[in-house]
Amino acid sequence: MQQYLKEIHEQNEKFMDKEIELKGWIRNHRKQKEFGFIDFYDGTCFKSIQVVYDNKLKNFDSIQKLKNGSAIQVLGKLIKSVGSGQEYEISATDVVLIGDCPDDYPMQPKRHTREFLREQAYLRPRVNLFQAVFRVRSIAAHAIHTYFQENGYLYVHTPLITKNDGEGAGEMFQVTTLDLDRIAKSGKVDYDKDFYGAKVGLTVTGQLEGETFAMAFNKIYTFGPTFRAENSNTKTHASEFWMIEPEIAFCDINGLMDIEEDMLKFIIKYVLEHAKDEMEFLDKFVENGLIEKLKDVLGKTATRISHKDAIDILQKAETEFEYKPVQGEDIAKEHEKYLTTYFNGPVFLTDWPKDIKAFYMKLNPDNKTVAAVDLLVPGAGELMGGSQREENYDKLIARMDELKMGKEGLDWYINLRKFGGCPHSGFGMGFERLLIYLTGVDNIRDVIPYPRTPRSAEY
Amino acid sequence: MQQYLKEIHEQNEKFMDKEIELKGWIRNHRKQKEFGFIDFYDGTCFKSIQVVYDNKLKNFDSIQKLKNGSAIQVLGKLIKSVGSGQEYEISATDVVLIGDCPDDYPMQPKRHTREFLREQAYLRPRVNLFQAVFRVRSIAAHAIHTYFQENGYLYVHTPLITKNDGEGAGEMFQVTTLDLDRIAKSGKVDYDKDFYGAKVGLTVTGQLEGETFAMAFNKIYTFGPTFRAENSNTKTHASEFWMIEPEIAFCDINGLMDIEEDMLKFIIKYVLEHAKDEMEFLDKFVENGLIEKLKDVLGKTATRISHKDAIDILQKAETEFEYKPVQGEDIAKEHEKYLTTYFNGPVFLTDWPKDIKAFYMKLNPDNKTVAAVDLLVPGAGELMGGSQREENYDKLIARMDELKMGKEGLDWYINLRKFGGCPHSGFGMGFERLLIYLTGVDNIRDVIPYPRTPRSAEY
Repeated sequence: MQQYLKEIHEQNEKFMDKEIELKGWIRNHRKQKEFGFIDFYDGTCFKSIQVVYDNKLKNFDSIQKLKNGSAIQVLGKLIKSVGSGQEYEISATDVVLIGDCPDDYPMQPKRHTREFLREQAYLRPRVNLFQAVFRVRSIAAHAIHTYFQENGYLYVHTPLITKNDGEGAGEMFQVTTLDLDRIAKSGKVDYDKDFYGAKVGLTVTGQLEGETFAMAFNKIYTFGPTFRAENSNTKTHASEFWMIEPEIAFCDINGLMDIEEDMLKFIIKYVLEHAKDEMEFLDKFVENGLIEKLKDVLGKTATRISHKDAIDILQKAETEFEYKPVQGEDIAKEHEKYLTTYFNGPVFLTDWPKDIKAFYMKLNPDNKTVAAVDLLVPGAGELMGGSQREENYDKLIARMDELKMGKEGLDWYINLRKFGGCPHSGFGMGFERLLIYLTGVDNIRDVIPYPRTPRSAEY
Repeated sequence: MQQYLKEIHEQNEKFMDKEIELKGWIRNHRKQKEFGFIDFYDGTCFKSIQVVYDNKLKNFDSIQKLKNGSAIQVLGKLIKSVGSGQEYEISATDVVLIGDCPDDYPMQPKRHTREFLREQAYLRPRVNLFQAVFRVRSIAAHAIHTYFQENGYLYVHTPLITKNDGEGAGEMFQVTTLDLDRIAKSGKVDYDKDFYGAKVGLTVTGQLEGETFAMAFNKIYTFGPTFRAENSNTKTHASEFWMIEPEIAFCDINGLMDIEEDMLKFIIKYVLEHAKDEMEFLDKFVENGLIEKLKDVLGKTATRISHKDAIDILQKAETEFEYKPVQGEDIAKEHEKYLTTYFNGPVFLTDWPKDIKAFYMKLNPDNKTVAAVDLLVPGAGELMGGSQREENYDKLIARMDELKMGKEGLDWYINLRKFGGCPHSGFGMGFERLLIYLTGVDNIRDVIPYPRTPRSAEY
């Protein structure tokens, strides 16, 4: 009966001295005259295992010919290892080739640059770094679902194709079934002939639709893809990424901060527990002190400070900032970093100037700031952005008018304030931003299976 | 301290005779001269609760004015109910208005047609039917994640924007940042100026990318949105829907069927356990016998029969079919129904004629059929479609040539057969199809929060 390597590692005492059968791949094959060592993995866990065979095996010669990258079946016995470097290994009774691999296999066991691996995006999941990163991605996703489901939140799939542009902030991709060549030929754009009979695009946020569900289910969250047609070629921008957007009825900005902090701690704990080997690898080879950085957050309570007070602190700082901190204005990455260092832990920045925040945020009594909050974390800066929403119908309308926003297509959103509206709050967390924080990998292209960036949509 | 209604119902004995505080909405308000009854819900669970108040309360008059749909805070004591219809209720000490609701609130407590509710898609989550459906949707999604994560599968986010058209089957939406009006004016389409520097569209399947991850992580699954620009206005077609596509290395078609059956049973058990009230409501008001239908599947082993043998059975049937069953051809809905009735349970239909299936499916030794399998379930027909994939490089190329398929852009997919390829299998399950089956709701528009169909992309 076939086993998975994960079982073998997890219950190695149970399997000790037993016959086992594994199917997987050769990461590295070292051959000597009378025996050989196969570094074997099957993808079910991070750790590989050493398979030892010798020339007493009847097909010793053909086993010796097995190449790196090949798919194989291993039959043998789990034994205590006499060599150093591992506690136990497999003493093979047979190794059978399932799928061959040529000598020019690009994923040879040596150091590859991240750039090279990106070009081989369909093969890179096989190397250690991406075995770790994508396992953490999967486990972190489940941590998020588990947190919200266990706390009674409803998971909502908000639409991706939409007529509305969310915050009006992000640039949108257009989605169409019109034939562009025909448009060029005819000189006419007829949206009536388009699939939806209208101009539509890919969503930049599920928040507005999410609010409609919070007004029915109390606590909801979204977890789905989001798009930005921003022509930014930076380490932190992708045009297609996943977002988590919880929304909670009868919850003010303080309750929201409690939830953000509680969720973050849950995710960190869950990932450290469920991806132990992966996190140790990342700590060792990607970001020294990664685990310590994350564990440190668990023991702390995030500081809560207003945008105004934060700017005061920044202005008094002896650090030379590239961008001068100014009251009423946004803060830069370097400022975020200063603040998390200053408070030695995560920081909630509250009460932002209304002019640099979105229309739906609740106006504070000072009429100048809104009940918005950004969560800054050590080492990564802004991780979540949220706000209490303006639940007052008249005030929302007034703010939209002030911003000269069109209301067509948003009547339903505004109506939420008319039909049993209530104080409610929500936040957004970019899933890839979380992963950059959790894995220490600093380029968003390396935490997405097949990243989409300007001029790049391979696979 | 505020409680959630879910806690109150789940631990009503603990809360009995205790002061409680709830925030939520009025579903129905019945007023009498000296007292009143509020049918109160807060969205955290399916069951509402009766709030009783009388004229001894100092703001009796203002409470009496509260309208259906309003958001309120209820303070009171949980007591055994003297009236019939409920075991316990809340004896209010105060009811405070949080958010008013006008008399023309569309969700009055009366029977609404599904069509009317669809037009009010942002309010319909508040009515019983959609409280049940969308809770089941959320719970079923988590059941799926839980099943795969507990069984060691890796969750993969495959890309949505893509250059390749997957199976070549579905019609694709185009995604662009080109200005259509400018194209009309200039008479030129210049993809070099498009965001990705190429013509791209929305994915019809994540399978091909999923396979690349199965070759690294062994067992993987996708769970994400998928798109079809099909101009079909039927009860089962939406242009945006969610798909689950697991892919398993070293797994043949028989192993695949085991997994499909195991997963289905897990989901059914999970939903019946975690959405008890919702399922009872759906059983009572949407599909009589729904729970029985699902429980029945749990106790059965699905029949496994070849397409050829199934056609034989259909041809011998005494039923008058609208479409005559023909060897070598596809089967119709009525045939699926006949087969699940004939075998009195779920049926795996295997070994399909190669000409009606996709290029990547493994050719059987007869050279005529492929190792494809559809799972048919009683009451809903086809629920999953899967196959063992052609892992042989030469055979895959030959099949693509036979179908005159272009290979550009698919080199990576083909290369999987060169670099340590192995037998592997996978299936796809439309999430909404599963929900139609689980809830008994027969229109896909009613199991998606904001459905996208031809000429309709509201919200």
